[in-house]
Amino acid sequence: MATLPGQLSPTPRLLLGPGPSDAHPRVLSVMSTPLLGHLDPQFLEIMTETQTMLREVFRTKNQLTFPVSATGMAGMETCLVNLIEPGDPVTVCCIGYFGTRMIDVAGRTGCNLTVKHKPWGDVFTLDELRDILKETRPKVLALVHAETSTGALQDISEVGKLCHEYDALLVTDCVTSLGCTPVELDAWEVDAAFSCSQKGLSCPPGMSPISFSPRAVDKLKSRKTKVQSWYLDLTSIQSYWGGDRAYHHTAPITMIYALREGLRLVLEEGLEARWARHVRNHKALKAGLEALGLEYIAAEAHRLPQLNAVKIPAGIDDVAGRKKLLTEFGIEIGGGLGDFKGKAWRIGIMGYNSRPICVLSVLAAMEHVLRAFGAKVTPGSGVAAAEAIYAA
Amino acid sequence: MATLPGQLSPTPRLLLGPGPSDAHPRVLSVMSTPLLGHLDPQFLEIMTETQTMLREVFRTKNQLTFPVSATGMAGMETCLVNLIEPGDPVTVCCIGYFGTRMIDVAGRTGCNLTVKHKPWGDVFTLDELRDILKETRPKVLALVHAETSTGALQDISEVGKLCHEYDALLVTDCVTSLGCTPVELDAWEVDAAFSCSQKGLSCPPGMSPISFSPRAVDKLKSRKTKVQSWYLDLTSIQSYWGGDRAYHHTAPITMIYALREGLRLVLEEGLEARWARHVRNHKALKAGLEALGLEYIAAEAHRLPQLNAVKIPAGIDDVAGRKKLLTEFGIEIGGGLGDFKGKAWRIGIMGYNSRPICVLSVLAAMEHVLRAFGAKVTPGSGVAAAEAIYAA
Repeated sequence: MATLPGQLSPTPRLLLGPGPSDAHPRVLSVMSTPLLGHLDPQFLEIMTETQTMLREVFRTKNQLTFPVSATGMAGMETCLVNLIEPGDPVTVCCIGYFGTRMIDVAGRTGCNLTVKHKPWGDVFTLDELRDILKETRPKVLALVHAETSTGALQDISEVGKLCHEYDALLVTDCVTSLGCTPVELDAWEVDAAFSCSQKGLSCPPGMSPISFSPRAVDKLKSRKTKVQSWYLDLTSIQSYWGGDRAYHHTAPITMIYALREGLRLVLEEGLEARWARHVRNHKALKAGLEALGLEYIAAEAHRLPQLNAVKIPAGIDDVAGRKKLLTEFGIEIGGGLGDFKGKAWRIGIMGYNSRPICVLSVLAAMEHVLRAFGAKVTPGSGVAAAEAIYAA
Repeated sequence: MATLPGQLSPTPRLLLGPGPSDAHPRVLSVMSTPLLGHLDPQFLEIMTETQTMLREVFRTKNQLTFPVSATGMAGMETCLVNLIEPGDPVTVCCIGYFGTRMIDVAGRTGCNLTVKHKPWGDVFTLDELRDILKETRPKVLALVHAETSTGALQDISEVGKLCHEYDALLVTDCVTSLGCTPVELDAWEVDAAFSCSQKGLSCPPGMSPISFSPRAVDKLKSRKTKVQSWYLDLTSIQSYWGGDRAYHHTAPITMIYALREGLRLVLEEGLEARWARHVRNHKALKAGLEALGLEYIAAEAHRLPQLNAVKIPAGIDDVAGRKKLLTEFGIEIGGGLGDFKGKAWRIGIMGYNSRPICVLSVLAAMEHVLRAFGAKVTPGSGVAAAEAIYAA
């Protein structure tokens, strides 16, 4: 080629979209640590430490808990393709974009798929889920815990128990919940959960922590067919992560260094303190956004603190507004997905970025952008409203 | 948990096994760069730069060239599941452990699979491949270019043309060749190739560069069935990497920073100079290993310079020998896989680690280990033999 690209030197951003969020500086720092081999005794110890901490963060004793060597969507596929065999009755309960992803992924397994929808932004009640289980009698029920496209929190605290009454396994998408809001795999009887590295865990994207309950492992062991994906086949991968440490694929060493550091940060802070921090910063952000005239999509009763999805006010252009935030203030927020394309803004205050300065910065910058597009906003009103919460 | 694991601080190693090899210090350095969003204009430019450099390194104009967001084995699965539909006649030609992997992966697609074997360490001749094509008439012929388990280099320079005479697509595993030995996708008419980040490209493991020829893209476009893996489905992923930059999954930002830097290093050096460097260091290593009485597995005519697989001498314990190298000298080499477990040592002199000091270090340490286990080796003979090559 004529000339090579120059040294990497991006203009810094503050990542307040749906993810990636900024990685914690300590995480970035460990990523320049020289490599170990994936079978080095030192690395095997790092794997064990990572798994132990991951179990704490997932609130589980599940033996089969480890990070899949790919991003969150690969975690979704791992959970579904390992627990589903062709012909199995499977039900996906969909409340947004990532629910439609589950439909697409499950649909490729040759299962007998039933899909139940609620309007985007809404969630399923326990009674509705009971009726669905009665009607569809699935072997696997899949739903999204934290729907990143709408900002809705699907209560799953009693869904696992319910599923087990109907002999179904519960698979949940915890991509946006883990490390931000309570996830209690054992207490909630969740059978398979997957998450990501780049939101509540404050690492770069690239890994998908998953956990399988003993019930899920039993299902895995009793499969009559091979898992359709070789790369995501837990019957083989568990030989590496499960104790024998037998070679399956070359683990992404540096990403595991990062995850280990991200998990250390979570547990140093403590899960309860971390969840409370996310709620506190959410309340301040919410007060500020509402003072700026912005309206949330999900009802307050089932709203994610870490992912604030609001309606774009009439007269404001989605792309131009976000571009102004990015170029003038270096702040990234997210646009809408699917049905909400052009209609929603998504502000993520997740992990390391769930901090007052992030809340105040985005409110101040947002106010500037709204006014630039002609919105009637009292100067300083967003920041003042947030400040009132912090002062309380 | 009782106490958290401490700060990450592994004892440094010199990674001279089959991979990962040491990442180049410049690569490690860019990995602490703060994140960008996966749809940030700055990141989209980094993607374009990475793809442009990757095409240079693969020696191809293939539009569909990008790194899969997972390790090399996911690249293998990507190539196979995207080009194969249920019932398709497929032939895998196997010369070692990674050939058996191709059999396993292809076997999960529902294709009509034929497998042809040669003894491990051997390779197929062009005449043999012609006969196989005539007999099996596959839509896809898959083979490994650089067989990491045996150290054999399968000449594929005329195999693509041959496959096209028989209307077959050629899929090749370039995991251990790319960045070390010539890979000429266009000149060799290869239809789909995959590699990894942690060998010839001197990055951490975690990405799998792939490239699809226009013929392969045509096949992809004319599929009648959905690709069985959602995560690896190129019909969707190419909307992100192929121009629209539409969201598919969250790209592993930091790993792409790393790959971009690794590719810059390859192209700064120049491919021909890099290949020559690997040959030169191989010749020195080979002289040294032979002086120490070690015998190569693959015949000289088809031997990989970057991956030196030798027979473990009688009387030397595989695991104890490697453990001694690791604990006393901090040097990692690889054991044997599959048929060669306990019988082979594999010494990788790849990418950044293809340096005289790595060659001399491993020879000196190896001599010490061999003598410790009772082998009759003249002190300094390995290093002296290598020195003679360097001095020539």
